[in-house]
This record gives sequence, C-alpha cells and structure tokens, in this order.
Amino acid sequence: MDGSGLLDVSQERQVQVDAVLARFFSLAKNRAAAFGPEYVQLWQTLEANTIGGKRFRPRMVMTAYQSLGGTDLEAAAYIGAAFELLHTALIVHDDVIDHDFTRRGVPNISGTYRDLAAAAGRTERVAEHSGISAAVIAGDLALFNSYRLIDRSGVGDVVRSRLIEVMDEALFASAAGELIDVDFAMAADVPRVDDILMMERYKTAVYSFECPLQAGAILAGAGEDVVSTLAEFGREIGIAYQIVDDLLGVFGLEAETGKTTIGDLREGKRTVLIAYATRTREWDDVKHLIGDPDLSEEQAARVRELLTGCGARSFAEGLARYYGNRALARLAEPHIPSALRTELHPVADAVLGRVK
Amino acid sequence: MDGSGLLDVSQERQVQVDAVLARFFSLAKNRAAAFGPEYVQLWQTLEANTIGGKRFRPRMVMTAYQSLGGTDLEAAAYIGAAFELLHTALIVHDDVIDHDFTRRGVPNISGTYRDLAAAAGRTERVAEHSGISAAVIAGDLALFNSYRLIDRSGVGDVVRSRLIEVMDEALFASAAGELIDVDFAMAADVPRVDDILMMERYKTAVYSFECPLQAGAILAGAGEDVVSTLAEFGREIGIAYQIVDDLLGVFGLEAETGKTTIGDLREGKRTVLIAYATRTREWDDVKHLIGDPDLSEEQAARVRELLTGCGARSFAEGLARYYGNRALARLAEPHIPSALRTELHPVADAVLGRVK
Repeated sequence: MDGSGLLDVSQERQVQVDAVLARFFSLAKNRAAAFGPEYVQLWQTLEANTIGGKRFRPRMVMTAYQSLGGTDLEAAAYIGAAFELLHTALIVHDDVIDHDFTRRGVPNISGTYRDLAAAAGRTERVAEHSGISAAVIAGDLALFNSYRLIDRSGVGDVVRSRLIEVMDEALFASAAGELIDVDFAMAADVPRVDDILMMERYKTAVYSFECPLQAGAILAGAGEDVVSTLAEFGREIGIAYQIVDDLLGVFGLEAETGKTTIGDLREGKRTVLIAYATRTREWDDVKHLIGDPDLSEEQAARVRELLTGCGARSFAEGLARYYGNRALARLAEPHIPSALRTELHPVADAVLGRVK
Repeated sequence: MDGSGLLDVSQERQVQVDAVLARFFSLAKNRAAAFGPEYVQLWQTLEANTIGGKRFRPRMVMTAYQSLGGTDLEAAAYIGAAFELLHTALIVHDDVIDHDFTRRGVPNISGTYRDLAAAAGRTERVAEHSGISAAVIAGDLALFNSYRLIDRSGVGDVVRSRLIEVMDEALFASAAGELIDVDFAMAADVPRVDDILMMERYKTAVYSFECPLQAGAILAGAGEDVVSTLAEFGREIGIAYQIVDDLLGVFGLEAETGKTTIGDLREGKRTVLIAYATRTREWDDVKHLIGDPDLSEEQAARVRELLTGCGARSFAEGLARYYGNRALARLAEPHIPSALRTELHPVADAVLGRVK
C-alpha cells in the first residue's frame, strides 16, 4: 500500500512536469512554423529527446518542495521542467563533445539528423556534420529555455532571483566538470580517485541532485539550514550515484540498466574503478585492455575479473556505501522535517540498491 | 566638431559596456578558481574572445536608449553587454559548426585550445577535439549568461520580462537561421535570392539590429509605435548590412575589412551574388570554381570578373541600397524623435558607405 501510494504521488508529479514541457514545446513548435518546417522538425526532435527520461531532476525539485509544505505544484513543475531542459541541453552537448550519435542505443539528435542526411544521399562526412550542427543548435535552445522556464514559473521576484542563482550554479559547475573530463580523457596518466569523484560531482551530481533539491526547498520557503543540509545530502548521494553508475557501466546487467557493460571499457573511461586499479599489481595485466576500441567480450570478462581480483570493485562498492551513509546522516539532522526524511530515504536506498 | 562629439559619446558608451563585461568576467574568474586553474583559463579565453569587437550590438541598444531619453546608462550597459555575450555565444558555436579554428585570422576558442593541446604533444585529432570541446562549453557559458546579465541589470519586473522576450526572440531567430544555413550549405542547388536574404536576416540581422534596437527602446519606456518602427528599421538595415558583407567577402579590401576576399569563394558560401549568378549565362563558366577549396588568387580574380560581368555585383549593390533606403524611410516616420533620427542616420550611412 505504502509503496503504491508513493508511486501515485510520484506519477502525479511526473504528469505535471510533462504537461509543462508539452505546453512549452507546443508553443515553441507553433512559433517555429513561421521559420519553416525544418525548424519545427528541430523542435520536434528536441522534444523527442526530452521524452522518455526518468524526470529524475524534476522529481528531486518536487519531492523537496512538497515535503517542505509547498502547495503551488504548477510553479514547482515549471522549476522541475527547467532542470529537465538543462539536463537535455547538457547531454546533447556532451554527445557533441564525445562525438556520440546514439544514447542508450537510440539515435540522439546528432544521430537523427545524421541518419536523415544519409538517407537523403549525403556522404558520411556531410551527414555527420549535419547531425552535429543540429545538436549544437538544439542544445543551445534547450539551455536558453531552461532559464526561460524559471522566468515563466510565475514565482515572485525574490524567489525567482534565488532560483536563477541555483540554476546558474548548476551550469557553472557542470561546465567545469565537462572541461575537467575532457582533460582527463586526454591525459596520459589516470587521475587519482579523489579527482575523479570531484569531476563527476561537478559534471553531473551538482545539477542532478544538489541544485534541484535546493531549488525545491527555496521555492517552498524553507530556512537556510534546510536548504544547505539538502544541498549536502544531494552532494553525498550524487557522488554515491556516480560511483554506482561507474560500477554498473562495467558490472551491470544491460537488460536492467539499458547501458552496455563494454562501452566504458572500450572508451577507456576514467572511473573510480580504473583509478583504484592503477595503484595495484594487477594493473600491468589490465592496462593495455582499457581503452581498446576493439575489446572483445572475452577480454572484457577478463578485465572484470581483474578489476574484481585487485579489489577495485569492492573498493568502489564500499565507497558508494560510504557516501550513501553520509547522505543518510544529513537526513537525520533535527531540522529536517520527517516528511522530507520519509521521502528522501527511499531515494538514497534506491541509489545504493543498485549496487549488489 | 560634430563628428568628434559623436565619437566621444560612442566611446563613452563602449567604456561603460566594457566595464560591465570586465566586472562580469572578473566575478566569473574568481568563482571559477574554486574549480581549478583550467576553468579560470577557459573563462579567460572566453573573455579574450569578447574583447576587441566593435561592440556593435551594445551600441545599438545604447543609441536607441539614450536618443529616446533614457538616463540609466548603467542598466543600458548591462543590456548591451547581454547582447554582446549572446553574440559571442553564437559566433563561438557557429565556428564549432563550421569547424573553424580561426576568426578574422586569429585563433578562436577552438583554435586556442587546439594549439595548446598540440603544443602539449597531442595528435592533431585529439588536439582538435580538445579545441571543439572547449568551444562548446564556453559558448554554453556565454549563452546562459547573456540571460543572466539582463537579470542583473537591476531593471523593474515588467521591463525585464519584455527584455527577456526580446532576447529570446533573438536566439530563436538565430537558431532558425543557423539551421537553414547548414541546410543551404548541404543542398546541391543554390537557393533563391529571397531565401538567402531570409536566412541571413534570421541568422544575424535579428539579433544584431532588430532586437538590440528594440531592447534599447523598451528600456527607455518608448511607445509601441516607436519600438516596432525601430524593429523595422533594424530589419531593413540588417538585411542591407548582410548584403554588403557578402559583397565585401568577395570584392572588399582585406586591409579594411580584416576579412579575406577568397574565403567565401573557396567555401562556396551561398550569397546573394551567387544566387543571382546562377540565373545568368556566365554561371557555366564560374560554377566549378565556387566552393573549390584550392581556388587560386588568379581563379578568384576570374570569378570576381564574371560576377561583375554577369551583373551580380551591381544587382547586390543595388539591393543593399534598396534596403538601406527602406531603412531610412522608417526613420522619417513622424513618431520617431529627431534625436533618434540624428543618431541612426549615420548608422545607415555607415552600412551603405561600405559599398563602393
């Protein structure tokens, strides 16, 4: 009963966020029509790339907001939708940077436009260029409008101004994380565990956990102590989430995660696992395989064995639990209302539940 | 006397805009320091890429504002700086799309980061990737903060909201124009003159002329008739400007324009000149040369001769004058205050004075 009740609330919130986004895209498409059908199509493609997500960031906004007594769900849905658009902008441009044409096995914006151009008989080079161009433009539109949705949320001046600062912080940190990530990928040496955690926090955790939770609390008119404790909870659980994500990228079940477990290895992605492994004896056996674009399934199995054998896997699992527990400790602070604790505890459990 | 007086006013305005931008970047660099020296460097590079411009869009904002009686020059400088940042964002991402590593002969953000990576011993491919990544990120920061500067301008709620709509329209149109431009470059056929004018208007004229002039007028509290006439003036003169720019890209003097007169031909840029030429007998002699990346100076001279001989050059010059005169007719409307007319007449003259 409890569980299904929770699901209902969560579904209701998602419906409201979806409605805001649907309205936003409907307006944009109508407006785009004056510029020609190609522009409408770009907006449709952008919309398609925001649909089907888990609406994770809007859920963080709305969970904090409602648990702290907020009742203007329309305004909260706007702020949630703003974070969803920011997320879309960041992953669309991240894919441009990584030269990726798919995300979770489905063509992204670059991929959609590349495929359209290829079907129209363009060469591969021209088709890829078409794809990347569309993604740069679409990401710009999403980014700009993430701001715009806060503006249209109808909240008062003082709160709006603070929300915009939070959104600004989200982008500011994410841009820093993206830059460091690019540097890490280029560097010959594998960075230290701490540096990887920091990069992952900036690039993803700040805008996915810390800022949406803060925004929800600010919108609810919560005190500074609650806002800052929520930010700390978001930071800890966000770091835990990233570590788990790295674990699942190598040891996960594709059917569950929708993510291959060979992609990160082939790409040579710098993760906590790899950073740990470099400091072990096993590294000499494994290092030539990490980042090999032609890594076979058999070799990948061998890498997994070595990453387990050298202790990297259990280290990462332990680290995720450590950050998860730090997050839970924040929730136990006396100024956190019990309704909020009740809502966020399952979030932390869900993150850690992914490690098995 | 008059001329130097005008220059003083214009220099004074530029100083104020520069001061807003300097403060903005100083804050951003301080804040970036917490994320590491690489991030400070990215902000420095972004700042370097906004310095040295003609501050054309801020000048449009401030000219409209002051001529319409506005006295809060600080606020106007913020709005002007916002348009300057939007401009920076758009050209930085335009260079990503065009895979350009220089602008007017100087390394742009992609070029700066590519050169740094190359100097650190990276392969050409990795170095280019580093450059493009930095440019995607820096453009995002500039774009987001163009909004932010309007927010920080200190103007009241109603005006702020309208200014943000104008800024939104600027990006909305520019993204459409960029998309159409990419399509044009891929298409086998040369588009019609009208379609090229429309694309150039969307991509550049709206955000460079129409919107900054509107923003200045709105900030000054001007009536709707003045705001919309200024938008029309901006549209006409903006189109004239683009046509002149295309002319200078082929027939200009590099020493004066800082732009090569062979780049557009080598790139096969779709311009009014080319669109006109396709409908003439001379096209068969010229078409194999347009878009030839190895076009020699001698061949370029031959193209110029043919574009002149077939009437494309005089057609484009005439078209620019036609739009220039339409712009001047807007200024003659009775509800345009004479101070504004006096300030904007030289703007139109300067645009047309470039055709000779």
